[in-house]
Amino acid sequence: MGGELMSNNKQVVLKHYVTGFPKESDLFLKTATVELKIPHGCNGAVLVKNLYLSCDPYLINHMKKVEENYADSFTPGSPIVGYGVSRVVDSSNPHFKKGDLVWGITSWEEYTLIKSPRNSIQNQETDDVTFFTVPGTFCKILHTDVPLSYYTGILGMPGMTAYAGFYEVCSPKKGDTVFISAASGAIGQLVGQFAKLMGCYVVGSAGSKDKVDILKNKLGFDNAFNYKEEQDLNAALNRCFPNGIDIYFENVGGKMLDAVLLNMNLHGRVAVCGMISQYNLDQPGGVHNLACLIIKRIRIEGYVVNDYYHLYPKFLDKVLPLVKEGKITYVEDIAEGLESAPGALVGLFSGRNVGKQVVAVARE
Amino acid sequence: MGGELMSNNKQVVLKHYVTGFPKESDLFLKTATVELKIPHGCNGAVLVKNLYLSCDPYLINHMKKVEENYADSFTPGSPIVGYGVSRVVDSSNPHFKKGDLVWGITSWEEYTLIKSPRNSIQNQETDDVTFFTVPGTFCKILHTDVPLSYYTGILGMPGMTAYAGFYEVCSPKKGDTVFISAASGAIGQLVGQFAKLMGCYVVGSAGSKDKVDILKNKLGFDNAFNYKEEQDLNAALNRCFPNGIDIYFENVGGKMLDAVLLNMNLHGRVAVCGMISQYNLDQPGGVHNLACLIIKRIRIEGYVVNDYYHLYPKFLDKVLPLVKEGKITYVEDIAEGLESAPGALVGLFSGRNVGKQVVAVARE
Repeated sequence: MGGELMSNNKQVVLKHYVTGFPKESDLFLKTATVELKIPHGCNGAVLVKNLYLSCDPYLINHMKKVEENYADSFTPGSPIVGYGVSRVVDSSNPHFKKGDLVWGITSWEEYTLIKSPRNSIQNQETDDVTFFTVPGTFCKILHTDVPLSYYTGILGMPGMTAYAGFYEVCSPKKGDTVFISAASGAIGQLVGQFAKLMGCYVVGSAGSKDKVDILKNKLGFDNAFNYKEEQDLNAALNRCFPNGIDIYFENVGGKMLDAVLLNMNLHGRVAVCGMISQYNLDQPGGVHNLACLIIKRIRIEGYVVNDYYHLYPKFLDKVLPLVKEGKITYVEDIAEGLESAPGALVGLFSGRNVGKQVVAVARE
Repeated sequence: MGGELMSNNKQVVLKHYVTGFPKESDLFLKTATVELKIPHGCNGAVLVKNLYLSCDPYLINHMKKVEENYADSFTPGSPIVGYGVSRVVDSSNPHFKKGDLVWGITSWEEYTLIKSPRNSIQNQETDDVTFFTVPGTFCKILHTDVPLSYYTGILGMPGMTAYAGFYEVCSPKKGDTVFISAASGAIGQLVGQFAKLMGCYVVGSAGSKDKVDILKNKLGFDNAFNYKEEQDLNAALNRCFPNGIDIYFENVGGKMLDAVLLNMNLHGRVAVCGMISQYNLDQPGGVHNLACLIIKRIRIEGYVVNDYYHLYPKFLDKVLPLVKEGKITYVEDIAEGLESAPGALVGLFSGRNVGKQVVAVARE
């Protein structure tokens, strides 16, 4: 054979299944090698160079030992898998050619060989349990006049999650009062801006003074508070929503949900996007005020973005112009290099990131 | 004036606001007097003789001191107010005449003078906070070839609640697996039979061997269990639902909801009709498994029958023939006389009743 172009391939590898809160030491950096072309006889494959990786809270669920039918675990000893932006560097697949930019599911490493890529994020089977753990579900990037990292955020999964959750789950209308927890995060910051564009009154909670400032002064929220500085979340919500909450966009769970339930209006709606406060607890905190659901006729609905990717073209038609015209802002927190990836990922669970946490693997 | 026909009027009076679990001594019997005709100058009024009173768990919410905007409290020193079946004995209202039978909101006493009756249960304002505490919202009874007490149950509020909850909130389809808690109660027994008629697999929980026998042998449930005899509710549900639960009709809350969440299927639906296990606790029990909502895409929706009374004619068209043809069964637990009313009402919260708890005030 001879003549192969070999390269080092830095990887972020899962050391062991995580229990409790994730630590940087649950992951380790490893340098493997990779051939920079598709191996002979490997038809239908693509080799991608990973440019940006997306740090998302859901990843922790796959770093734990999963017993459920609905999800798979990552494999200890192998790189973890998640959303990213990549460039095709070699292809034996008719749907992808060298130079194509894609976003979708890749591995946390410099280069990833994908034997059976699926150009199918819009036709995603909603109960495909391998989606999150097997690299290869991609969507081609056709618009490159925006920062490429945006395809891990505002123009990728978090953007689509915000769009589906707000427009499809929350049943919003002009004048609604909207509360968003983890509001400066990858998804919350967009939900708030979508709600403002619709003419809603929007309040967010976040975990630092800086984040609250961003919500109020950069993202156009009507009000915001630092939940860590509030003695009584019920009182904080009551202060911000004297006329009650019509829509709650739930990212955190636990005590915040309990306080929100007390402040919801008749026929209120709760879209449950995440419950980051609960993921790493041995025994999740109890929610005590669910009896409010009855007399207030509240609907709480959990959702997963995969059920809504068929709307991605419609989403892009709406959001891309807003981004280009500066009518939507997106705050990113970009960590440089794979070496910084474990810290960036673990930092999500202490709220270290300000805005969407991205890892820049390679800036071309 | 002279010549008035006076009568004793036994009443069930709220002694004081209830705290914690209700006791019979929170109520007392009082004998007042009543004139058996509409007083002069009282235009638009009706005088009704109460025949059957309905013991419903929601009543406890009005026996407590209510701080919310959404509900009113009953008045200590006055008779409590609830659903019942009554006969008009005098009327100065053009919409009602002497002899009419009605079901709707009346007082717990032998005779009730209603100054402004509303013949409007089908046009009920959904956020009328006086609905439950001010007698006078009535619906005329046109079909009397069924037991009149049924208008406190299968043909009244509980029937309509079961109908709206199952057909309008649960989004049921043939083949769905359906779990119902408090399944032998006024509402649960109907939901189970509606689900069987649709071709669902139906399991109920109840609090005694007798009730479980009724579910399995009289009401046609596929399976049933006594939750008091189960060490592990999760295991009990897993045993009854090896393929998971598509629909949960929630009447109890707390630990049962937590166990159900672990056993729900993807895109499962929970209609929250009541949470009787929680109403009398100082601190409601915590529900810990709400993170299941996300990955399983579960919808939980609280509802109140008042939002659905516009469907009452449609409901009656469907259910009345089923009742007359014996295709639906209804189990009632009838206590005789107002003297038995406090015990009957309080008994709901220990599960003393078997089937719909009714108080027969007068059998004509």
